[in-house]
Amino acid sequence: MKVNGQHYHTIWVKEGDDSIIQAIDQRLLPHQFEIVDLKTCDDTVTAIKDMVVRGAPLIGVTAAYGMYLAALGNENLREAAQKLNAARPTAVNLAWAVNEQLKAIEGLNDKGEVIAKLLENARRIKTEDIVISRKIGEYGLSLIEAVSQNKKGETVNVLTHCNAGWLATIDWGTATSPIYHAFEKGIKVHVWVDETRPRNQGANLTAFELSQHGIPHTVISDNTGGHLMQHGMVDMAIVGTDRTSIHGDVANKIGTYLKALAAYDNNIPFYVALPSTTIDWDIKDGLKEIPIETRSEDEVKYIQGKAENGELIKVLLTPESSNALNYGFDVTPARLVTGLITERGICNANEEGIFQLFPEKK
Amino acid sequence: MKVNGQHYHTIWVKEGDDSIIQAIDQRLLPHQFEIVDLKTCDDTVTAIKDMVVRGAPLIGVTAAYGMYLAALGNENLREAAQKLNAARPTAVNLAWAVNEQLKAIEGLNDKGEVIAKLLENARRIKTEDIVISRKIGEYGLSLIEAVSQNKKGETVNVLTHCNAGWLATIDWGTATSPIYHAFEKGIKVHVWVDETRPRNQGANLTAFELSQHGIPHTVISDNTGGHLMQHGMVDMAIVGTDRTSIHGDVANKIGTYLKALAAYDNNIPFYVALPSTTIDWDIKDGLKEIPIETRSEDEVKYIQGKAENGELIKVLLTPESSNALNYGFDVTPARLVTGLITERGICNANEEGIFQLFPEKK
Repeated sequence: MKVNGQHYHTIWVKEGDDSIIQAIDQRLLPHQFEIVDLKTCDDTVTAIKDMVVRGAPLIGVTAAYGMYLAALGNENLREAAQKLNAARPTAVNLAWAVNEQLKAIEGLNDKGEVIAKLLENARRIKTEDIVISRKIGEYGLSLIEAVSQNKKGETVNVLTHCNAGWLATIDWGTATSPIYHAFEKGIKVHVWVDETRPRNQGANLTAFELSQHGIPHTVISDNTGGHLMQHGMVDMAIVGTDRTSIHGDVANKIGTYLKALAAYDNNIPFYVALPSTTIDWDIKDGLKEIPIETRSEDEVKYIQGKAENGELIKVLLTPESSNALNYGFDVTPARLVTGLITERGICNANEEGIFQLFPEKK
Repeated sequence: MKVNGQHYHTIWVKEGDDSIIQAIDQRLLPHQFEIVDLKTCDDTVTAIKDMVVRGAPLIGVTAAYGMYLAALGNENLREAAQKLNAARPTAVNLAWAVNEQLKAIEGLNDKGEVIAKLLENARRIKTEDIVISRKIGEYGLSLIEAVSQNKKGETVNVLTHCNAGWLATIDWGTATSPIYHAFEKGIKVHVWVDETRPRNQGANLTAFELSQHGIPHTVISDNTGGHLMQHGMVDMAIVGTDRTSIHGDVANKIGTYLKALAAYDNNIPFYVALPSTTIDWDIKDGLKEIPIETRSEDEVKYIQGKAENGELIKVLLTPESSNALNYGFDVTPARLVTGLITERGICNANEEGIFQLFPEKK
């Protein structure tokens, strides 16, 4: 999508130098727009760990490029795969993409062939992700269109949590893709952007995306969505997911569960947009089986923002002596999810619905 | 309660100078502990508006002193009452305290008598508030004690939202009073402190209070409580309220409703602690009738914290061009409230329960 009027992806091979992968440094957004060079597998591990790149699909593509850089750097690819898999525990795309790379080079012995195959395959995974995001957008568009018709063309208010935008993927996004598609079609749409503490991906990234693309939006504290829903100010919620169980339980950024409860309590449709790569076919009960990442307490105690002099700085928000606890995700049980928007269409959040769209996984 | 080992109230008449009211400047906590002088009624209006003082009971006592300062300054007391009432729209204690002052001086004509009466009455309101907080603590203690016994003495985990601590009252607090009482009785207790965006009263004030008093606590983002409840890490929630309808609907800091939904979904008791002065006897349907304050969008877009050099500064969190919306409160419907902890005991959150404790209000 667009940044300063120019079209970008979140990650790409540097023009004129295949040995360097470039990505947008998402830690500096929305205040600074900078590109980083990833030259080794370790660079990609660090980029994933430190959230230079984040979002399940983008993490997957980054890991795929990481495998390619490992081969370029003569590393042991099994060890590289392990390093990459350990970089973030919750996102299933990471392990999926690494595994795709390992499968792609099975039987290949020539080093040059391995490198070429890993690059080609990373590019394929990337392209597929763009197609998936576009399809999610096309299917999700029908939902927004229906609401717009019901409201006789009045603005459709969509609430989203965290950033399941194009910055979390390669282009279009997942949860935001229906919104971008609706906007391009001329449907009046407005987005409530949960700021999404503690890392503020909503205030930092989703708000940045939407403002760069000219989509009307309003940032709200994470506490506000329930009140808006009680007062008819939200027509639908669309969020992303990092891992979905085959029962339709959805792991997504911490706080998603609270919004799903509020949507349910106010009869507001609550949709989850996902590429099928985020479905974990081995997991049934999401609440019991999806591992939830615990992150540094400093992400709660400190926050980064832009000071008056333009500098990005961190400030302390709590008493120095207070402890904090920082879970990255929570699990929304399927009973609170109206539907899953996938690249193959929209289905109910249960085993039956999912297998109808993906019968080959049965 | 204690600050640096010394016992404080939140507001008091300056020792040796009855013409000055002193209060803790709560905007600087937890990073700086400073006392401000309030010398005129306008000073108290500004202190309430700018949240130098906040919390429904403390706002009430401050307004009572404001009426006294207005008389001292030869102001028209009806106009002073109007100014004070307009300072914050949601808290019912404000209007209640101002009205108590107007009633107290009915029939008095001598200026000196009026001044003396207003000071005496402000002190009475203040003392009554301390007694109310203490009683709420004693009744609420029984709930924590019961959980502790059920858990065979294991730590009782209490979640609270915003600051309904002693800093919101004069001493003890409302929601925190049962916790302080449990702690003094040697019951093992640990508090989950919602940071409470956008103004972070949890991270700033509740965490400060608890750490100064030595009570184990952990700061969490507002998004986290649902996950903790899903995983058995919360035994009960206790929050305060700014206004309660006679049906038991509860207006409290924005986000309270989301926690109540999560508690209900996980069978966790959700209590609201309140002095009966926060009950609005004229309001039945809280969701429809309680006015909700909209505050500046800058409270969402900017946040204050302590920089590395020790300075308190504000940083920008969103794209400069993004809008934000900032509702101060939401309303939790009575059906989600396990019980109301008042100075007269604990009752069901409905008309019957409330009138059993306060039959004279029927």
